[in-house]
Amino acid sequence: MEDRIEQHFIKERIHHLEQLSALLRIPSISALSTHKSDMVQAANWIAESLREAGLEHVKVMPTKGNPVVYADFLHAKDKPTVLIYGHYDVQPVDPVELWENDPFDPTIREGKIYARGASDDKGQVFMHIKALEAILKTKKELSVNVKFCIEGEEEIGSPHLPEFVSEYKDLLSADVLLISDTTMLGPNAPAICYGLRGLCALQIDVQAAKSDLHSGLYGGAVPNALHALVELLAGLHTKDGKVAVAGFYDDVEPLTTEEREALAALPHDDETYRKQLGLSALFGEPGYSTVERFMARPTLEINGVYGGFQGEGTKTVIPAQAHAKITCRLVNHQDPQHILDLIEEHVRTHTPEGVTIQVTRFDTGRPFVTRFDAPAIQSAAVAYEAGYGVKPYYMRMGGSIPIVEVFDRILHVPIVLMGFGLPDENFHAPNEHFSLENFDKGLRTLTYYYEHLETV
Amino acid sequence: MEDRIEQHFIKERIHHLEQLSALLRIPSISALSTHKSDMVQAANWIAESLREAGLEHVKVMPTKGNPVVYADFLHAKDKPTVLIYGHYDVQPVDPVELWENDPFDPTIREGKIYARGASDDKGQVFMHIKALEAILKTKKELSVNVKFCIEGEEEIGSPHLPEFVSEYKDLLSADVLLISDTTMLGPNAPAICYGLRGLCALQIDVQAAKSDLHSGLYGGAVPNALHALVELLAGLHTKDGKVAVAGFYDDVEPLTTEEREALAALPHDDETYRKQLGLSALFGEPGYSTVERFMARPTLEINGVYGGFQGEGTKTVIPAQAHAKITCRLVNHQDPQHILDLIEEHVRTHTPEGVTIQVTRFDTGRPFVTRFDAPAIQSAAVAYEAGYGVKPYYMRMGGSIPIVEVFDRILHVPIVLMGFGLPDENFHAPNEHFSLENFDKGLRTLTYYYEHLETV
Repeated sequence: MEDRIEQHFIKERIHHLEQLSALLRIPSISALSTHKSDMVQAANWIAESLREAGLEHVKVMPTKGNPVVYADFLHAKDKPTVLIYGHYDVQPVDPVELWENDPFDPTIREGKIYARGASDDKGQVFMHIKALEAILKTKKELSVNVKFCIEGEEEIGSPHLPEFVSEYKDLLSADVLLISDTTMLGPNAPAICYGLRGLCALQIDVQAAKSDLHSGLYGGAVPNALHALVELLAGLHTKDGKVAVAGFYDDVEPLTTEEREALAALPHDDETYRKQLGLSALFGEPGYSTVERFMARPTLEINGVYGGFQGEGTKTVIPAQAHAKITCRLVNHQDPQHILDLIEEHVRTHTPEGVTIQVTRFDTGRPFVTRFDAPAIQSAAVAYEAGYGVKPYYMRMGGSIPIVEVFDRILHVPIVLMGFGLPDENFHAPNEHFSLENFDKGLRTLTYYYEHLETV
Repeated sequence: MEDRIEQHFIKERIHHLEQLSALLRIPSISALSTHKSDMVQAANWIAESLREAGLEHVKVMPTKGNPVVYADFLHAKDKPTVLIYGHYDVQPVDPVELWENDPFDPTIREGKIYARGASDDKGQVFMHIKALEAILKTKKELSVNVKFCIEGEEEIGSPHLPEFVSEYKDLLSADVLLISDTTMLGPNAPAICYGLRGLCALQIDVQAAKSDLHSGLYGGAVPNALHALVELLAGLHTKDGKVAVAGFYDDVEPLTTEEREALAALPHDDETYRKQLGLSALFGEPGYSTVERFMARPTLEINGVYGGFQGEGTKTVIPAQAHAKITCRLVNHQDPQHILDLIEEHVRTHTPEGVTIQVTRFDTGRPFVTRFDAPAIQSAAVAYEAGYGVKPYYMRMGGSIPIVEVFDRILHVPIVLMGFGLPDENFHAPNEHFSLENFDKGLRTLTYYYEHLETV
């Protein structure tokens, strides 16, 4: 870190916290329509902050929902362009009585700032603005190009972002997308997430007779919708835990030795994990570690089953209908629609006698993985090391972040997830907070990243 | 039929219908506590009617619930004793607006008497009394011994009958138990039911992790309660429809050639049956006809399954718990508790990795079969032929009648189910009725039975 930028951060620290507090005071809850004017206020606040930082072409751009804040600074010829995504909207605060301070009256206690949005994601967006401001104020120039795209609907599923990104595909074009909306593994344990699993979802509806039948009068002679369903569902996995749908693994890229080493290096202990979850044993696909199973391997999970009698005691009924909800977590290069095709084909060829089965498809999201050794990832790693003094972990996340899939699909750029939150900072819960240590180290990390990014 | 008995029935017919109407006017609904005094009134009415018929030792005997009416006539030395079971209580009448006449204002339309209890079971109890009255009034003697046991809680599951039968085991001792509380196969198609299936019931509760888990963050690495449950449940049957629980069929008596012929003679058409139920195909245990499957073979039916998400759309959850309700229909000599032991053992040895399973047992009932060629059965057949002019069908019933199991267990007598209702007479539904043709023919059938029973 250059000494004058470091001096800038030290000099500005109290001012930064005052500014962040001002942003956190705006109750920009996207889920509640009564907060419409707060959304606009938060967007304008972000825009003004970007202007003050020295960014150019700052715009509060309307969508059919809440506006997107755009800004850029594009003066580094032949250098990569970084697109920064974040969101200024926050989760609701219920149950508000469990908060130790008003969620929109930021309070600092024991090195943490407590407020809704402190960590998710206002605090992290703010750090990007302040890192760039530090460079621009002290050096008057930037050795990379940057664009901001800060939306106001992430907490409600980003309903208008796909349309926005498609419409402004050229405006948003970049060489790398940088997102700070995830967490580190723990205190002083930064982690770069280089992959997310995709998702596909479906429902299976089984119909046997036209109505429920008495098990005494008909039992033994007619198909039972639940018998058919459990037979079908049980056939979706092998006994040892592999998905039994033909072709399911065909497009799964094998894990490289480097990746397996990186995932093995993550702090994880099977026995501790098992006990925390209250399980008698862990269970999963043979040939993979627990971490590989939940981060880097595809799954087919039955999320719900229902049919027949659910009350107390007993009812002698042969159910006419039975239902199951299923989601798959996908890894590259599994295509969600193709996986749904395979499952439908499995259902078609495995439908038990005497029943009809209908499959309904729900939303999908494509899996995403940035090449493990991509320069964009390695640059982030070097920056983390500069900011924290330790090498970061490399991880994938087992879940899905729909907006990542949107950017991946439309913009085709490497994506770097560089988070500064901690897993216990109560995202979406009462007493959300953000560690000031990570605020400070994160500012240095991001500044280093913007100063040293050469290629992606 | 002796001419003077036939003359008696012809002369008394209007009087009989007036008397039956008087009994049907008493709203003896056992399910509703507001009808307590009606229960006593109905019991007293039955008792008075038995006295008038010439029966002896008529008693209205208290139980912890509604009273039981007892009577006997025991003057036929070295002749068999017939115990007649029936019930004077009736089902509720809701939805009362669907009745074409007041359910307790008996109305005769097109040869049928409409009222709650007309067929189930006041009408049929009344016929036994009037058949014996006809013999006693015209001949002053009876060539068999008879005992009546008419209870008032059948429609609420006979909660106090087991205790009553145990306590008065000697008083009720007999050589054959005759019950008229079932239906014929159709008009002029009398049927003798010589067997009923037994029942056992259980619930299976699967527990995986201590709480539901996010399918993105944990999916692939932890057991899913629903995966375990569907694997377990699917393993309870073979693909072709046999029960796969070890030992399940060990105590099942094979069907004799005579029985198979009798069941094959029952009016049944697979294609009609399939279409009526709206099924694409019938399904059941290989090697047995549809009739054999639902009358004479044991079953294991999943009556309900529930676990995880049941709402609209999708939820990415790994369920911690999953539940199933199961009942088995049993045939002789399957013991319900032993079958439950076998299922528990199956569950224990087939519990998938990583989950714990709890089994809860519910009520049971033993199966019942009277020897197909027993004299008690054959005498009933001859009586039906005398009353109807056609040979009766022989059938088993796939369901269970708990009181039959009670008498079978405590009194160890052959049981004959000789019903005179029709399947479409709206038992338990609005517009219950009883065919006067079957009232007339039934009187002759029962009279013949009581006059000709030599051995059982």
